[in-house]
Amino acid sequence: MSKQRLEAFSDGVFAIAITLLILTIAQPTNYHDLQHDIVARLPDFAAYVVSFSVIGIMWFNHHSIFAHFGRVDRGLVYLNLLLLLTIAFIPYPTQVFGEALRQGSGAEVAAVMYSATMAVNAYVWSALWLYASRGRRLLNAAFPESERRPASLAFSIGVVFYTASVGVAFINAYACLAFHALLAVYYALDPLSRRAARTSS
Amino acid sequence: MSKQRLEAFSDGVFAIAITLLILTIAQPTNYHDLQHDIVARLPDFAAYVVSFSVIGIMWFNHHSIFAHFGRVDRGLVYLNLLLLLTIAFIPYPTQVFGEALRQGSGAEVAAVMYSATMAVNAYVWSALWLYASRGRRLLNAAFPESERRPASLAFSIGVVFYTASVGVAFINAYACLAFHALLAVYYALDPLSRRAARTSS
Amino acid sequence: MSKQRLEAFSDGVFAIAITLLILTIAQPTNYHDLQHDIVARLPDFAAYVVSFSVIGIMWFNHHSIFAHFGRVDRGLVYLNLLLLLTIAFIPYPTQVFGEALRQGSGAEVAAVMYSATMAVNAYVWSALWLYASRGRRLLNAAFPESERRPASLAFSIGVVFYTASVGVAFINAYACLAFHALLAVYYALDPLSRRAARTSS
Amino acid sequence: MSKQRLEAFSDGVFAIAITLLILTIAQPTNYHDLQHDIVARLPDFAAYVVSFSVIGIMWFNHHSIFAHFGRVDRGLVYLNLLLLLTIAFIPYPTQVFGEALRQGSGAEVAAVMYSATMAVNAYVWSALWLYASRGRRLLNAAFPESERRPASLAFSIGVVFYTASVGVAFINAYACLAFHALLAVYYALDPLSRRAARTSS
Repeated sequence: MSKQRLEAFSDGVFAIAITLLILTIAQPTNYHDLQHDIVARLPDFAAYVVSFSVIGIMWFNHHSIFAHFGRVDRGLVYLNLLLLLTIAFIPYPTQVFGEALRQGSGAEVAAVMYSATMAVNAYVWSALWLYASRGRRLLNAAFPESERRPASLAFSIGVVFYTASVGVAFINAYACLAFHALLAVYYALDPLSRRAARTSS
Repeated sequence: MSKQRLEAFSDGVFAIAITLLILTIAQPTNYHDLQHDIVARLPDFAAYVVSFSVIGIMWFNHHSIFAHFGRVDRGLVYLNLLLLLTIAFIPYPTQVFGEALRQGSGAEVAAVMYSATMAVNAYVWSALWLYASRGRRLLNAAFPESERRPASLAFSIGVVFYTASVGVAFINAYACLAFHALLAVYYALDPLSRRAARTSS
Repeated sequence: MSKQRLEAFSDGVFAIAITLLILTIAQPTNYHDLQHDIVARLPDFAAYVVSFSVIGIMWFNHHSIFAHFGRVDRGLVYLNLLLLLTIAFIPYPTQVFGEALRQGSGAEVAAVMYSATMAVNAYVWSALWLYASRGRRLLNAAFPESERRPASLAFSIGVVFYTASVGVAFINAYACLAFHALLAVYYALDPLSRRAARTSS
Repeated sequence: MSKQRLEAFSDGVFAIAITLLILTIAQPTNYHDLQHDIVARLPDFAAYVVSFSVIGIMWFNHHSIFAHFGRVDRGLVYLNLLLLLTIAFIPYPTQVFGEALRQGSGAEVAAVMYSATMAVNAYVWSALWLYASRGRRLLNAAFPESERRPASLAFSIGVVFYTASVGVAFINAYACLAFHALLAVYYALDPLSRRAARTSS
């Protein structure tokens, strides 16, 4: 399995998952008062935008991280499949979250489900990184040894934040959605990929 | 992030969004008088064809524009993600528009929503171009300096037209759909990409 | 627009359309007698298999035909988009056809719709070929002049057969589906692509 | 048809099928007791995870096997299309299986349908391998002759196991799902691709 192949397949899953998300917004049911019906769906649109951002930024970080790998092995292929599972799954809790907010019922449960999905995703990201970087198993020569520990730490912080998002879900569903939007911004500015961007430019 | 990667991912989203569109046409509900049921769905088919054309032509212009970029940076990656968000979103207002026309109810609201989606898209296209071309940030050497201003103007005209389409939506929904079909034709003949085609051939 | 790009985008649409087809088979509604429910859906499965074959073989022929093109131009890009429109549309009449056969109602109308979709597709294939081959506009040097006329004739025969399928639809819906299965076999053995395969091997 | 093209198209179908799977989990219907509704959908999630694993591992093995082919021919293209048909079909029986388990009705029928799909898939894998390897038709020089027979045997064993899964379906639906999970693990450790991985690294 070549690294390029693995990345192309992953890109495909990212692209499909991010585009399929639009199917998570249920169609209006009342065309007689369409304006009101669409305005009532604002929570669905908000959940859509947050999940779109999350997947888009993850796609970008996937590239940044894989840019540091000199080769791939069977273990990475399976960890990457597990990662794709947690990403391909995102449309489901997104739809449930948006719908629960719209109906004003079950929003906390939906927020917990959404946050738990993201937390599992963060654990798998962290596991993938630790697997690939431990003993520099898959890292290429260009990746500085001094960056290895800070990078692992950054992934661990991600795990902490996403685990915390499950707690936020229990408090307030809207706060939880906002928290996820903030985390997306944090990852958009993520040091590891910023470093990668600096290296590759 | 290599330019090729960014284009491949964008192509993926374009290809998926354009193909997913077919799911926007609701299945017939009355098979006893199927002919009548299908004829009544002509507005859905019309909205489908317009949106298919819009996305297809945008894909073509995406290539033409990116052909002028010598490199990509993080800012472009995020602006491109925002652009893909407005494109991946198109199936939703397309379905609402077709359905509102078919039901003969809420058509103006649906037309406004459709036009607003396209207007936001035009703003993002313009922002992406200005970001990449200002100070020739990402332009390659082959792009003639004399074309920079006319190209920016062309994008601004797009913004004006698509903003105008929101106004047309308030007047008449069918006129609005026809207006979008006309704009698709205009972009199919768009000077910027015509120039790009001339250069690359 | 490079030829490779155009082919990659087309491959994407082919791959998505062929995989989306599975959504055309409606889920069972009666789990208490699931066996009976699934057996009653055999027409949906049959329509699924025929459309899958049609799209798969079209994908193969798309490659065979584009292998003869030395370059692409703007006209071909738009004709190819039109072709992709008729292919991305296939899931819709497939679902209507399968459902009409299952319900035993509206089957002739559905068969006409299915056949008309395929006939339009055949016209676009023919137009694309004539556009690219007339005056050897886009043909590469390797394509023998002596094969140009026979190839055009093969496309015209396709147009005749698919137009005839509309007539068959008026007679009997099941015969029409069988006719389309036969046409798929015919195109699987299509001289043009067989020749291309011989050349490229 | 180049081998690379065939693989890219196959990768596309694998990526789409694996991502579409998420649509097989029906949305909650009761937001007033969302927690209970989601817990009741655990069988759907289980079927989702098993099918995701099956498709992901098949994708990996597809690469491993195609790495041994020096070229492709028309016969392989069609056998590969048939293989993709059986893979693109997987979301349907997955949804039926999950739903039948959830409703506690029709589970055995659904398990038989799921197992039969996988069995047909195993037959096609085996046919594809025998077609490509018989007389070393498409094998490249690097593939050792001594591995040909063991590989064919491995495919035949797959056929036996998947045929046996149909029998397990008649006994107990949950046992059948577990059996498919086990088979996925078996194929994740499949000798043929392990050998390929060793060769290519």
